[in-house]
Amino acid sequence: MLELNGIAVSNGIAVAKAYCLIEPDLSFEKVRVTDIDAEKIRLKEAFQKAKSELEEVRDIADRKFGEEKAAIFSAHLLLLGDPEMLEAIEAKIDDGWNAEFALQETSNMYIEMFEAMDNEYMQERAADVRDVSTRVLSHLLGVEITDFSRISTDVIIVAEDLTPSLTAQLDKTFVKGFITDIGGRTSHSAILARTMEIPAIVGTKTATRDIVQGAQVIIDGSTGKVIMNATEEVLNEYLEKQKKSEEERQLLEKYRSLESVSADGHHVEIAGNIGKPEDVELIIENGGDGIGLFRTEFLYMDRQELPNEEEQFTAYKTVLEKMQGKPTVVRTLDIGGDKILPYLKLEHEMNPFLGYRAVRLCLDQQDIFRTQLRALLRASIYGNLKVMFPMIATLEEFREAKALLLEEKQKLIEEGIPVSESIEVGMMVEIPSAAVIADLFAKEADFLSIGTNDLIQYTLAADRMNEKISYLYQPYHPAIIRLVKSVIESAHQHGKWVGMCGEMAGDEIAIPILLALGLDEFSMSAPSILNTRAQIAKLSKSELVGHLEQICTLTTANEVEGYVKKYLLK
Amino acid sequence: MLELNGIAVSNGIAVAKAYCLIEPDLSFEKVRVTDIDAEKIRLKEAFQKAKSELEEVRDIADRKFGEEKAAIFSAHLLLLGDPEMLEAIEAKIDDGWNAEFALQETSNMYIEMFEAMDNEYMQERAADVRDVSTRVLSHLLGVEITDFSRISTDVIIVAEDLTPSLTAQLDKTFVKGFITDIGGRTSHSAILARTMEIPAIVGTKTATRDIVQGAQVIIDGSTGKVIMNATEEVLNEYLEKQKKSEEERQLLEKYRSLESVSADGHHVEIAGNIGKPEDVELIIENGGDGIGLFRTEFLYMDRQELPNEEEQFTAYKTVLEKMQGKPTVVRTLDIGGDKILPYLKLEHEMNPFLGYRAVRLCLDQQDIFRTQLRALLRASIYGNLKVMFPMIATLEEFREAKALLLEEKQKLIEEGIPVSESIEVGMMVEIPSAAVIADLFAKEADFLSIGTNDLIQYTLAADRMNEKISYLYQPYHPAIIRLVKSVIESAHQHGKWVGMCGEMAGDEIAIPILLALGLDEFSMSAPSILNTRAQIAKLSKSELVGHLEQICTLTTANEVEGYVKKYLLK
Repeated sequence: MLELNGIAVSNGIAVAKAYCLIEPDLSFEKVRVTDIDAEKIRLKEAFQKAKSELEEVRDIADRKFGEEKAAIFSAHLLLLGDPEMLEAIEAKIDDGWNAEFALQETSNMYIEMFEAMDNEYMQERAADVRDVSTRVLSHLLGVEITDFSRISTDVIIVAEDLTPSLTAQLDKTFVKGFITDIGGRTSHSAILARTMEIPAIVGTKTATRDIVQGAQVIIDGSTGKVIMNATEEVLNEYLEKQKKSEEERQLLEKYRSLESVSADGHHVEIAGNIGKPEDVELIIENGGDGIGLFRTEFLYMDRQELPNEEEQFTAYKTVLEKMQGKPTVVRTLDIGGDKILPYLKLEHEMNPFLGYRAVRLCLDQQDIFRTQLRALLRASIYGNLKVMFPMIATLEEFREAKALLLEEKQKLIEEGIPVSESIEVGMMVEIPSAAVIADLFAKEADFLSIGTNDLIQYTLAADRMNEKISYLYQPYHPAIIRLVKSVIESAHQHGKWVGMCGEMAGDEIAIPILLALGLDEFSMSAPSILNTRAQIAKLSKSELVGHLEQICTLTTANEVEGYVKKYLLK
Repeated sequence: MLELNGIAVSNGIAVAKAYCLIEPDLSFEKVRVTDIDAEKIRLKEAFQKAKSELEEVRDIADRKFGEEKAAIFSAHLLLLGDPEMLEAIEAKIDDGWNAEFALQETSNMYIEMFEAMDNEYMQERAADVRDVSTRVLSHLLGVEITDFSRISTDVIIVAEDLTPSLTAQLDKTFVKGFITDIGGRTSHSAILARTMEIPAIVGTKTATRDIVQGAQVIIDGSTGKVIMNATEEVLNEYLEKQKKSEEERQLLEKYRSLESVSADGHHVEIAGNIGKPEDVELIIENGGDGIGLFRTEFLYMDRQELPNEEEQFTAYKTVLEKMQGKPTVVRTLDIGGDKILPYLKLEHEMNPFLGYRAVRLCLDQQDIFRTQLRALLRASIYGNLKVMFPMIATLEEFREAKALLLEEKQKLIEEGIPVSESIEVGMMVEIPSAAVIADLFAKEADFLSIGTNDLIQYTLAADRMNEKISYLYQPYHPAIIRLVKSVIESAHQHGKWVGMCGEMAGDEIAIPILLALGLDEFSMSAPSILNTRAQIAKLSKSELVGHLEQICTLTTANEVEGYVKKYLLK
């Protein structure tokens, strides 16, 4: 039995076999060979094995995810069957080199050639060559490489980290939990796990080193504990705990159909954050009062080109229809930062979080932005759409973005295409400058939504993904509370509503403070909705306001957290 | 005649020959050779040329900068003379490869071997091999590589950018100006140019492409214009302009010995920012009232190991003595971000500006911090020392840093070493969270100094070095003005003084606003001191306060700038 501890980022207990995602060791020596024929046979066998494997992966991908995702593997198979490539490798073997080196030299030549062509299609071919060559090399070396798509039994994924593109391959049917070496509460893996409602432990530092492929693993998403090869006794203990936690979940059920209202009758809205149209189901199942944040960038990711207006229209329409008139806040494209679209070919930035992203990119590359705005406007008649611009730092940006929206609206009307007349146009308050002059924005925007994940990292100048300083990601820092307070007051002074769509909105320590400050809308991942509604039902807003004055005199995040824990958690 | 335009970052006109710092093209083909002996002769000739060149460079470095800087070239010469390396390359040529490839393969082998050893000394040897191999390769290819240390006539440096380590090699006697492709008002090149008081144009985009090595170049640091191969007429025009601007400088002379006081008798302090002890001379020459920022990280850069207590003590003592009792604010180590110390072996960060730097690093690696604090404390008796901590985001950080200072002070006293009893302990306000809770900090710190360069970039979430979004680096953004106002008011409420040591303090648009807000100390690069004193002498603080209310209603940076230009520039 082996125990590890990490950061618990998504509740629940899971028991399953470990599926370790390890970068295979594909190093080899450059060697002179004498038996040329034997070497060529080794090469051909590796090609053959790679081919069978790829066919299998393609079939699985086709079955599980459909033709589109399978297509990439068909392209790889075509490459494997290319006689020219094989001949080039064999020519190097004829020169007396071992198959590994011959393969690498040849594929590098192809990769460089493709990469040198300034053409998106050719760049992708370079990536294909790299993938195929890695696969063949793995067979030459007898090293196994991992394919997420081949998972077909219950597993707990063990990885250094899960990138957005990796997670796109995950099949929710079989993945029961995550364990990662790095990351924190707001890393992609953590957010994904909460969306999937599966337990996850991140930041274990050594999981990939310590956990054995295929070993039985228990993870406890409330304590951060990971146990490998548990004793019978410990296993039973956790199975019991798992049962209990399921029962607690059942208790929350009654809140599913209740209104979001405090003990003293103050109504709020508890909405959900979604990344894809299909996530709406989870929000509805959990009784969300609306969508507080639809992150549209997932429409743009894991593909080769920009989504066209029609595709986007369909996605937005689907979400709006499913929400049946409930408020649905759609955030326009927030790409850049840690979310990269290879096909946009953005330059590398030294500090991407302080860079060319979101509305900055959209106002610069207006064709991309206008397409999205048109799709949103066309979809607006199918529900209660509210459009929200991300990363607004200056009034000019908000004015310009809004002007583009109105321009596209006018064009659509002239084209005879129906557009809703009641679309609210708001913005994220996630940059300190926007929070500091929220009163000026509140005059011009229909609503403000506080994006705490970014607001906290900019206000404290601390990258929340950077483990060395993650202690500075402090939602309860007095400066954050002051800024949130001032944003809410500014908006209310101008008769506008304020939402919050960062992690903080679903955080039990923050909720009493936010309720006291008068936050109108709390938007969070689906699994937090019922907990939050239950917590708010037990809190009295008028009583909290009394505590607020006291909280505003505290000088550190620790003091704030201590105060809330002592007096306000019921 | 060719004209280019860039961003004017340091005033003055310079006329000199272009010295282009261009990355040489050292690409070559991997080729089979038949005449092995001829190839070996090519190699040996290249070695010989590299050797003569290195000897020359070493002698120049020795003459200009002293033995220490010359030592690195002696190490390179030793490597060149190593028979083992030469033999290994010749063995590759015996295999039938061309000298370039043989050289590269051999040096890569050495580099990998050295780098694989987890040892600082060996890592440096890898760098030496890389440098030497590049030099030999340049001779094989007949391509010239640049050595700053060989400059011995008046030049204007033309480069893509100037890194801090490159600038360390510059000899102020011969460098009359800079032109760079990238960068903005606050890039290193710009700051360095202002410190050296030489004109500079940055962000020309194409200077390295368009300007020909050795061509005559005119740069006008007030307009941002660069002219190559000017006509006789244009040249004379600029020589005339150069003369005039020198005359204007003479006019400012009278302010050198005057007090810093507004037209209506309000006194302020106009201090200087320095990076090295020798920069103090410039501040004194320009009549600075003190040092508002001594950036100590330059003590730590361009070397192989941390500076010891004694070295630091000497540097601080030198500055304090030269300042003869005038206020001298020393900022503790602000390393990290874009300032890297290779010997600290910090991990690569995705967003270094939001990362592990400054006081975060110092509180984590306390041995480094304590050494600096001891050196400062020991030097304190030689002048009017004020210690300032950078990048403070939370009260805990300030308290911990101050506690370490007091601990070291107590130790010194117990050791019988004299320490001043009147050292003020303050902090930079450069992170939004610190600005927002400046009132809480003002209770515990002796003074606050607003670091606008960072404060602006964090408040607007815009990396000031990133050209694509540099328009968001807005000193006059209403949020910045509100934060500065609130910091000054908070400090004054607690009877503390407030300085500003960012670029904004010497900016003629900002100065009337800062004076109206009651800023106590303006700290800037030496050449701005007299201009600022002259500007303040013409302004009436009481009159400005009337305008301030109006300025605080403006909604954008453009409106603020327009207002100041219209009403407040005299």
